[in-house]
Amino acid sequence: MQFSAAQIAVLINGKVEGDPQKLVGSFGKIEEAAAGQLAFLANPKYEDYLYTTAASVVIINDNLELRQPVSAALVRVPDAYSAFATLLSKYQELKTQQLTGRQDPSYVSDSATMGEGVFIGAFAYIGEQVKIGNQVKIFPNAFIGNNVVIGDNCIIHPGVRIYHDCRIGRGVTIHAGSVIGSDGFGFAPQADGSFKKVPQIGNVVVEDGVEIGANATIDRATIGSTIIRSGAKLDNLIQVAHNVEVGHNTVIAAQAGVSGSTKIGSNVMIGGQAGIVGHISIADGSKINAQSGVSKSIKTPNTAVTGSPAFDYTSALRSQALSRNLPDMEKRLKELEQLVKQLLAERINL
Amino acid sequence: MQFSAAQIAVLINGKVEGDPQKLVGSFGKIEEAAAGQLAFLANPKYEDYLYTTAASVVIINDNLELRQPVSAALVRVPDAYSAFATLLSKYQELKTQQLTGRQDPSYVSDSATMGEGVFIGAFAYIGEQVKIGNQVKIFPNAFIGNNVVIGDNCIIHPGVRIYHDCRIGRGVTIHAGSVIGSDGFGFAPQADGSFKKVPQIGNVVVEDGVEIGANATIDRATIGSTIIRSGAKLDNLIQVAHNVEVGHNTVIAAQAGVSGSTKIGSNVMIGGQAGIVGHISIADGSKINAQSGVSKSIKTPNTAVTGSPAFDYTSALRSQALSRNLPDMEKRLKELEQLVKQLLAERINL
Amino acid sequence: MQFSAAQIAVLINGKVEGDPQKLVGSFGKIEEAAAGQLAFLANPKYEDYLYTTAASVVIINDNLELRQPVSAALVRVPDAYSAFATLLSKYQELKTQQLTGRQDPSYVSDSATMGEGVFIGAFAYIGEQVKIGNQVKIFPNAFIGNNVVIGDNCIIHPGVRIYHDCRIGRGVTIHAGSVIGSDGFGFAPQADGSFKKVPQIGNVVVEDGVEIGANATIDRATIGSTIIRSGAKLDNLIQVAHNVEVGHNTVIAAQAGVSGSTKIGSNVMIGGQAGIVGHISIADGSKINAQSGVSKSIKTPNTAVTGSPAFDYTSALRSQALSRNLPDMEKRLKELEQLVKQLLAERINL
Repeated sequence: MQFSAAQIAVLINGKVEGDPQKLVGSFGKIEEAAAGQLAFLANPKYEDYLYTTAASVVIINDNLELRQPVSAALVRVPDAYSAFATLLSKYQELKTQQLTGRQDPSYVSDSATMGEGVFIGAFAYIGEQVKIGNQVKIFPNAFIGNNVVIGDNCIIHPGVRIYHDCRIGRGVTIHAGSVIGSDGFGFAPQADGSFKKVPQIGNVVVEDGVEIGANATIDRATIGSTIIRSGAKLDNLIQVAHNVEVGHNTVIAAQAGVSGSTKIGSNVMIGGQAGIVGHISIADGSKINAQSGVSKSIKTPNTAVTGSPAFDYTSALRSQALSRNLPDMEKRLKELEQLVKQLLAERINL
Repeated sequence: MQFSAAQIAVLINGKVEGDPQKLVGSFGKIEEAAAGQLAFLANPKYEDYLYTTAASVVIINDNLELRQPVSAALVRVPDAYSAFATLLSKYQELKTQQLTGRQDPSYVSDSATMGEGVFIGAFAYIGEQVKIGNQVKIFPNAFIGNNVVIGDNCIIHPGVRIYHDCRIGRGVTIHAGSVIGSDGFGFAPQADGSFKKVPQIGNVVVEDGVEIGANATIDRATIGSTIIRSGAKLDNLIQVAHNVEVGHNTVIAAQAGVSGSTKIGSNVMIGGQAGIVGHISIADGSKINAQSGVSKSIKTPNTAVTGSPAFDYTSALRSQALSRNLPDMEKRLKELEQLVKQLLAERINL
Repeated sequence: MQFSAAQIAVLINGKVEGDPQKLVGSFGKIEEAAAGQLAFLANPKYEDYLYTTAASVVIINDNLELRQPVSAALVRVPDAYSAFATLLSKYQELKTQQLTGRQDPSYVSDSATMGEGVFIGAFAYIGEQVKIGNQVKIFPNAFIGNNVVIGDNCIIHPGVRIYHDCRIGRGVTIHAGSVIGSDGFGFAPQADGSFKKVPQIGNVVVEDGVEIGANATIDRATIGSTIIRSGAKLDNLIQVAHNVEVGHNTVIAAQAGVSGSTKIGSNVMIGGQAGIVGHISIADGSKINAQSGVSKSIKTPNTAVTGSPAFDYTSALRSQALSRNLPDMEKRLKELEQLVKQLLAERINL
């Protein structure tokens, strides 16, 4: 792929100075770029490189005044750094879109069906009756179990495992190593102290536009579905237990965990390492601070909580501050005890 | 596989109404099932579908009184929902048992030995001198290191990694992405502030009937064995450090962690995200609440603890409640100080 | 590989008794070892086995006085146990070094380059333009994305995923299932409550001598690099967010997490399950206790903190102790209130 300075200017809404026909095919740092590369100059400290760089096109800030002639074509924008980042990101998106076909060896069962523009990486496994939509990219070493359905435009990163019968919506991204649909943690205690496995025959439904981080785990439902509603964003290493529902546009930060059958509303924000017990519900718009332990339902929308056990954010902060002052409080209490003792003694002496 | 209404009645201990020879080969919802499918009716709201369904066999509740003739064969049981779940679970078990042979490509070293009825999925790796028992199912992309021994009837889900020399008992299930036998975290501090790796030459022993969730990590011992005793159940994303022993029938919920050389007794219950420091022991039957941080040995069996640092459950709850009331306590203290100050002032004035 | 008693003595700095030419090729326990095996005797309880063992060479303690003749060649050292461990570890190292070549099938792109003595396990994936140094061992099912650079002497365990453009230094070990370079968790909130992905176009740089445990996740930077400085040791299941810098020789225990853009100094020790918020800095030599929640920068080097929110270790311990005594404090407060009330009543009665 090659782009002219003029094409780049259109993509990032900039103005060309110099030869608009100059072509670039890759990216480089201004201090090391070669001919045919695109660079940018954001930090004034590096301005000298602008006059010596071999880059064919350089993105610069609108307000930069040239002190010498420049051989590269320039593209001026308000913020060179962010324009360059935008370009790089579009470029990577384009490269992902262009990934198509099957790398060898991969395993695709005869009964699986696929849309247009699908990529199946080497050592990826596609089970029986799997249905894969258009433009889905399945990276190497991923595992897609029997009867799984994956909607259009999903990206399944390396080593993701999706157990049988799960449903993935459109535009879902799942990062490396995450596991969708492992058995819920259900064991019935027996009289002899042992545990008998409760069959986990439900599935996981991940709706449209969800993003799931790396090495996260989302268990299948005992019966029915564990559901991640559309637009939810889940970070790395989070745990979602069986029969949980995570609401629309809810955000869960890394290493947080939600226990079985809990229902989390829409637009909830859950901080890192927070834990939520099972069988409760969390109202829409709630904010759960990092490391909190939520042990009761939150019924009022937009409530903020913190602490373990978690309670109302403002009171909790006040209690936490007082906790730190406990040595001082204890000292004040002791002094009072002395004074009162003295007062009592005097009274008796009266 | 096809089953008659009569056979299904035997499996779930029910009574047939209608043609006991009707055959089914798959499952469906009562509102959409086709001929040759098995459905169930539990929720009275859906009763109308019973009279129109194309399903060949329907499981219904004992006490349901038919208002119209039904073309499907019926199987009556006390709880249609749970009978259907049982059937579905048995069916999946059967399907797992029927998985045998090797998918291509997989890697099995010449020196590995296998029992009867073993399944090796595509892209699974079986190292040198590995011994695999009867009816073991190793799913795609799993890695079994050199000299590993796996007992009969184990299920090793996709992408599980078992390092060299580990021992897995009979009837063990390990979910996707879990790592057994990675190096313990042992580094000796050096004079210059750097760390020198302490060789981790032990292994992990997982006894019979253990279940391990997804993306969990169990480190090999420095010397000797990290041991998971029979019947223990470990949830997703848990961490078990080197030389730990987890007792018989002990249950550990998601994201909990146990530090090195700690010995956990039998029938202990450890809540989610709890942490236990190294080199301590936890008495049989202890209950460790979610998010607790256990920093000392628990010597009395059946002790319940909570908090971080964790202590006796009942006192801890009382302290936690008072913590929340700290603003109130502080106010009471301030009022007392005022009153005593006043009393003192009056006394001086006397 | 076969070693003589004399060669073993050289390796562990011991003295031979008996035939220095006796050869061993593997290891065994003294009670079960066969001819051609090396055993050790450390525990005096097992001394009887020394006189009956079939092992060809036995490592024993310097101070052991033989009560009977021994047919095995003996190698005397100050500590037989640790000498045996050293040998076993050297042996495993040697075996790892001897792993070379490519197992079949593996996927190596044409544009990848490799040094000497490299091992590529079955089902490993090596992307475009990847550069792999000398003596690098890449185990089965690992994924190395496009443009990744891996320095000499690295060990990449099974199922590790390294996303495109990341840089791994020399002598780095990464344990099974860890993910390096997944997208940072960056989403810009939109007016309608949804979130728009912020492109994550940076990478991860892991410097020389770093060890990373199993199933850990290290996200790529939004722009620039997430950096793990030389000599750092990261345990299992830890989370390092985008644009974080982990300092030289810093140690992070299992399940701890560091949020985005935080800069952790050198020689810091972070306990298990600790969490550190984003956009702060932690001074060199700080000690962060297990399960702590660090919400503010630590500016003074060598500070120890604990608690959630974390503060100064000594005060925090005092506050924690007082927290446990809150029921007692509350009782004292109530008693004081009674007494003061009484004093006030008496005063009014005056």
